[in-house]
Amino acid sequence: MPEIINISDAEDPRVAPYRDVRERDLVGREGLFIAEGEVVLRGLLDSSGHRPLSLLIAEKRIGGLADLLERVPADVPVYAAGQAVMDAIAGFPMHRGILGLGARAPGVAAADLLAGLPARALVMVLVGIANHDNVGGLFRNAAAFGVDAVLLDTTSCDPLYRKAIRVSVGAALQVPFARLGAGEDALDVLEAAGFTSFALTPSGTLALAQVRRPARTAVLFGAEGPGLPAEIMARCAGVRIQMSAGFDSLNVATSSGIVLHHLAEAIA
Amino acid sequence: MPEIINISDAEDPRVAPYRDVRERDLVGREGLFIAEGEVVLRGLLDSSGHRPLSLLIAEKRIGGLADLLERVPADVPVYAAGQAVMDAIAGFPMHRGILGLGARAPGVAAADLLAGLPARALVMVLVGIANHDNVGGLFRNAAAFGVDAVLLDTTSCDPLYRKAIRVSVGAALQVPFARLGAGEDALDVLEAAGFTSFALTPSGTLALAQVRRPARTAVLFGAEGPGLPAEIMARCAGVRIQMSAGFDSLNVATSSGIVLHHLAEAIA
Repeated sequence: MPEIINISDAEDPRVAPYRDVRERDLVGREGLFIAEGEVVLRGLLDSSGHRPLSLLIAEKRIGGLADLLERVPADVPVYAAGQAVMDAIAGFPMHRGILGLGARAPGVAAADLLAGLPARALVMVLVGIANHDNVGGLFRNAAAFGVDAVLLDTTSCDPLYRKAIRVSVGAALQVPFARLGAGEDALDVLEAAGFTSFALTPSGTLALAQVRRPARTAVLFGAEGPGLPAEIMARCAGVRIQMSAGFDSLNVATSSGIVLHHLAEAIA
Repeated sequence: MPEIINISDAEDPRVAPYRDVRERDLVGREGLFIAEGEVVLRGLLDSSGHRPLSLLIAEKRIGGLADLLERVPADVPVYAAGQAVMDAIAGFPMHRGILGLGARAPGVAAADLLAGLPARALVMVLVGIANHDNVGGLFRNAAAFGVDAVLLDTTSCDPLYRKAIRVSVGAALQVPFARLGAGEDALDVLEAAGFTSFALTPSGTLALAQVRRPARTAVLFGAEGPGLPAEIMARCAGVRIQMSAGFDSLNVATSSGIVLHHLAEAIA
C-alpha cells in the first residue's frame, strides 16, 4: 500500500491538474489526460504505454481500493480528500470518487504501429469521427473484439479526451492507436503493411455476412451523416450492414460492434 | 402548405409547451412529448399512434421544409419564430430549428400488443434500462433490424423522453411498445403469446452465432452492470456475445445491435 497524502485544501498546488476537469478537455493538455473511475484507473495501471502520474481518491473509497492501490508504482503519489474538497477540486460532484492523472505514451507513426503487429491482425480506422462518445464507444468495441490497433485521421477526436476514455471504459488506454499525419494516406499505409481494407458504408456491395477476414484486415468507419469520403470508398471493398427498408440508420459505434463481432468470428 | 403562425414573443401562451424543454423531461408531461429535429419530426408524422399537436420552426428553415409541411394535418398549427425568440422559448440554443409537440398513443397492454403481431415476429424486452441514451439506442436498433414491438418493465425509462426520442432518431415514435404492469411477468406474457424468449447475458450457454430464430422470438436485455435478474435468466435460454478474454464489456445498445442484426438474418 503506497503512502496516502491527505489533501484538505482544494487550492493545494499538488492537485492543480485535477482542477475543473470538465473544462480541461477544452484546453491544451500537453500530453496529460484525466482518467475517471475504478475500471478506467485499472486500465491505466495495465497500460503498456500510458503512465499514471498521480491519483486522487475520495477518503471513503480508500479502504475498498486496497488491491488497486497495491499496483500503483511507488513513485506515483496517491492523494486523498474528503468528498467536499474533492468536489471543489473537480468542479462538479465527483461521485466516482477516483481520478487519475496520466501521461500519454509517445506518439507512434501509423506505419511503425502496423509493422509491429502480428501476421494475423485486425485494425480499425476512424475517419472524421469528431464525437467523443462515438470514439469512446468505438474503442470499447475494439477492445471487446480483439482489435490490435486503431488508426485515426487528422479530423477524428483524441481518444484520450476524458469523456472518450470514460465511454470506452478504459479501452482507449489499452488498444494501441496512431494518428495519421496530414499528408498520410490511410489506404496506402495499410496496403504497404499487407492489410486488406474494407469500408463500412450503406452502399457497400458486400453484405457483412459474406465477408471473410484475411490475415491482415482493416475496416474503416466514417462519421454518421457524411460517411466515408468517396475517394476512400472508390479504393476499397464496401461492406454494408443489411437493415430494414424503412429505417436504415445506425450509430457508428453500434455499427462497429456489429462489424467487429462478425470479423472476430469470420476468419478466412 | 399549412398556414404559418408567426410568434414574436417567447412568452406567447401558444408556445408554452415548448418552454424550457430541457427541464420539461423531468416533470410530469401528461401524455405529451417533444420531438426535435427534422428526421424525428418526419417520424412523428409517419407514426400510426402518436399524434402531432403543433410544430415550432425557426423562420429561416421554413423554406427548406416545404415537403415536410405539406404532410402536416390541417388542424395542426405550425408556429414560426426568429432564432432569438426560438432560443428564448426553448431555453437553450435551438440549432436544430424544428420542434414538435406530440400526444402519445393510448397505452396498450403487453398481451394485446403481442396478440396483434404477425405469426413471424421479433420482440425486444427491456428490463431495468433506466438510461435515456441506451433506451434511445435500443429503439434505433430495433427499427433498423425490423423488431415488431418492444416491451418495457416498470423500471425502464420512458422511450418518449425527449432525449430518448432524439437518440433513437425517431424510432421511439415508430416501433410499437407497451409497458408491463407492476404484477405482470414478461416471460409469462410472452409464452402465452407463443414467443420463445432468449436472455442476453455474458454467462449465456448459447453463443449468439448458434441461435436460430423461431417464428415468434423475444430477446431480453438488462442494464449494464446488474444485467438481467437471476429469476429471468433461470427461465429462458441465455445467449452470450463472444468477446476478448481480457475485455468483456459492451454497451447494451451496441449489444442489441449485434444480437438483432444476427436474428434479422438467422431465421430458423
